[in-house]
Amino acid sequence: MIQNDTIIALATASGSGAIAVIRLSGKDAIALCDAQFRSVNKKTLSKEGTHTIHLGHIVDDNRTLDEVLVSVFKNPKSYTGEDVIEISCHGSPYIQQEIIQLFLRKGARIANPGEFTLRAFLNAKLDLSQAEAVADLIASDGEASHQIAIQQMRGGFSNEIKMLREELMNFASLIELELDFAEEDVEFANRYQFQELISRITNVLKRLIDSFAVGNVIKNGIPIAIIGEPNVGKSTLLNALLNEEKAIVSDIAGTTRDAIEDEMSIGGINFRFIDTAGIRETEDVVESIGIKKTFEKIEQAQVVVMLIDAKELVTKGDRLKNEIAQIKNKHPQKPLVIVANKVDAIDKERITNFESQIANLILLSAKTGEGVEELKSKLLDFVNTGALRNNDTIVTNSRHYDALLKALEEIVKVQEGIDANLSGDLLAIDIRQALYHFGEITGEITSDDLLGNIFANFCIGK
Amino acid sequence: MIQNDTIIALATASGSGAIAVIRLSGKDAIALCDAQFRSVNKKTLSKEGTHTIHLGHIVDDNRTLDEVLVSVFKNPKSYTGEDVIEISCHGSPYIQQEIIQLFLRKGARIANPGEFTLRAFLNAKLDLSQAEAVADLIASDGEASHQIAIQQMRGGFSNEIKMLREELMNFASLIELELDFAEEDVEFANRYQFQELISRITNVLKRLIDSFAVGNVIKNGIPIAIIGEPNVGKSTLLNALLNEEKAIVSDIAGTTRDAIEDEMSIGGINFRFIDTAGIRETEDVVESIGIKKTFEKIEQAQVVVMLIDAKELVTKGDRLKNEIAQIKNKHPQKPLVIVANKVDAIDKERITNFESQIANLILLSAKTGEGVEELKSKLLDFVNTGALRNNDTIVTNSRHYDALLKALEEIVKVQEGIDANLSGDLLAIDIRQALYHFGEITGEITSDDLLGNIFANFCIGK
Repeated sequence: MIQNDTIIALATASGSGAIAVIRLSGKDAIALCDAQFRSVNKKTLSKEGTHTIHLGHIVDDNRTLDEVLVSVFKNPKSYTGEDVIEISCHGSPYIQQEIIQLFLRKGARIANPGEFTLRAFLNAKLDLSQAEAVADLIASDGEASHQIAIQQMRGGFSNEIKMLREELMNFASLIELELDFAEEDVEFANRYQFQELISRITNVLKRLIDSFAVGNVIKNGIPIAIIGEPNVGKSTLLNALLNEEKAIVSDIAGTTRDAIEDEMSIGGINFRFIDTAGIRETEDVVESIGIKKTFEKIEQAQVVVMLIDAKELVTKGDRLKNEIAQIKNKHPQKPLVIVANKVDAIDKERITNFESQIANLILLSAKTGEGVEELKSKLLDFVNTGALRNNDTIVTNSRHYDALLKALEEIVKVQEGIDANLSGDLLAIDIRQALYHFGEITGEITSDDLLGNIFANFCIGK
Repeated sequence: MIQNDTIIALATASGSGAIAVIRLSGKDAIALCDAQFRSVNKKTLSKEGTHTIHLGHIVDDNRTLDEVLVSVFKNPKSYTGEDVIEISCHGSPYIQQEIIQLFLRKGARIANPGEFTLRAFLNAKLDLSQAEAVADLIASDGEASHQIAIQQMRGGFSNEIKMLREELMNFASLIELELDFAEEDVEFANRYQFQELISRITNVLKRLIDSFAVGNVIKNGIPIAIIGEPNVGKSTLLNALLNEEKAIVSDIAGTTRDAIEDEMSIGGINFRFIDTAGIRETEDVVESIGIKKTFEKIEQAQVVVMLIDAKELVTKGDRLKNEIAQIKNKHPQKPLVIVANKVDAIDKERITNFESQIANLILLSAKTGEGVEELKSKLLDFVNTGALRNNDTIVTNSRHYDALLKALEEIVKVQEGIDANLSGDLLAIDIRQALYHFGEITGEITSDDLLGNIFANFCIGK
């Protein structure tokens, strides 16, 4: 799989900026750049030290493409572990493309998605879970997801797995060694210590597997459905929460037809708000599709916010309690927050006693902002962020989750084998299977298909 | 005007990429970075050499924000001429913002638009026309505009101006010296050489001023209006030219209501196509607004393309000739190309003789692509790109154009003064005025207002 041809890609975001960075990696990276680079100090990059920067021009025959800074990284001291050149040019898309095209004509190849990081993995600069964390880090858009990704990139998660794997591998070797001396009935592997290790691994695996529920919502955002009658102020509430005008706000009932999703960070956790059309009986085809979607969104949501007009507490209080009971009945496990909007428009004396009658009732005015902070903190209450606050390792990657589940399955078999006093050769088979799944996580065990899948999700240039 | 507080900004395009670069400049740039940077090799940036790169982590107290590469540039060997730090971090918008916010809390200030380049100018790393070329270079989106910007950034244009200014200043000094010896009636300034210089300056100024017409269209793209009856295939033609689906194509007559503008590069020159609603009598209010816009667009366009249905050559040939004559009559100076579209749908024998009867007639099929290349090369014919091909200096900046016009005005007065045998003291006044306008171009003469206007048009981070 290892290739050492020279790859090139734009490393910075596409579009126009003050500068852009184009990255070359591979055995000819420095020579290719030397051929097109005219240093103002007449320097030859191949003769310069690693981690040095040089001012000059990129030229194509007699045509000057740009004045640039070239950074030189010599193998193995680079991101990929190969020779790497970073060209910092002016940030016009035209110039970026001209420089990339020039090097393609001169023999470089455009990098595949994630190929720089793949090469870093193949050159043992990163293990596989660290490489995956690079993509997570770039995608991270809140404090929590960022913290998890950087912890994983710095090896927190894979070190734990690697150490357990190593200990388990020692025992596997000792047990397999016993098989060679089967006639002599020796025990190299201390069964007491082995049982202790298996218990420890079981606990770690269970903790990591449990953390995935938290990790997954942190990574993807916690989905919250906002439901209610038309015109009760859902879009306005969303805007108050988002502080911007993403949803169409209008006084015409039934304006919000498409489910509009938007994200915001509260206390470092990303919430994904799902605004929905109302649940009103309607003959409008477009709107009835919207209502069907509303019920689907409740299913997908982790928390449901029911938005009502505060004056209905007075006028339709009993009907509301009845509706709330029906939703509770249909979705008993789903946390439900009742938000009485437009409290600015009514006499508050008349509704305060409802707070004791309806659970999780928040009096709010999307208009004045009253109650918005209370709603935010209520939403946070529903998220179990204990693991996050304790700085525990949290699994966010479904590939890791699958491998951990399979490893646990094998470890359970090993435990059953110990309990049943199984012979060493049978134990060894299950241990090897568990080791295999551990190795999948960190990349000691891998395949071209697996690597292809993982790195295909990276952006080009990483 | 010179400030040496420390400024920070994202230097790469906004959005998500593999990496992003954050730039700090000012007297505390290195110290600020040292305080938040943990080098993996325990290095202190202030003790490292200029143009070196260091791997480590940006930390906020105990929280690690990212693993980064830090590039160190020590004054005066940097873009701004000050101490500069470039932090190459992972390209997540979240991380970019966290790092920038961290340094803002620690005492850096967010840079104003163009402030890095402004500081480069104030520290004499660039003259003013070179600084302006930086913005042009980033905005350049075709070979021609790129070539002009890079020539200007490398000083081609301002060197010419500076040399003329210096020669003229020498004469001005000599003439003013004569005034001190007025009683003695001496002539330090050789009037023959002076006349020769004034002639030379006049020629250069006229050439530069003339070049602005070409420069302006190259910089902004050459506007081309496409007119014709509804449903004749304007959107389809645009798409064939653009090779993409920017305009809405539909069989319903009158679909194109908004004028859609789009750019494409032909032979290195940018053309800006203006698609317009048809010129049909209509009672539809929306569409009649579109038709009004069509006539406005013809005014704005440098070339007009009249698109007709090829079969109308046969059925309404005389009416067409009449219409063409009317347009020619109304816009005698405006180049008009007649494109007969949908030639794929008719018997070509019947229309070939029209090519001799109608000037600039192109038989085309937007569907099959026939004639599209011929149209492109016809459009190029209408652009005077001689100056570009001769690699002459081309003025693209209207500020320079204004200053050149004013300088020429003063030089003409000087010439008239010489012809009228004016005394030295009167000549000197006009010469000083001309020198002033020369100095405006390169920035020897400047004001805070002028600098403010120029750099306000830069992006933040440049």
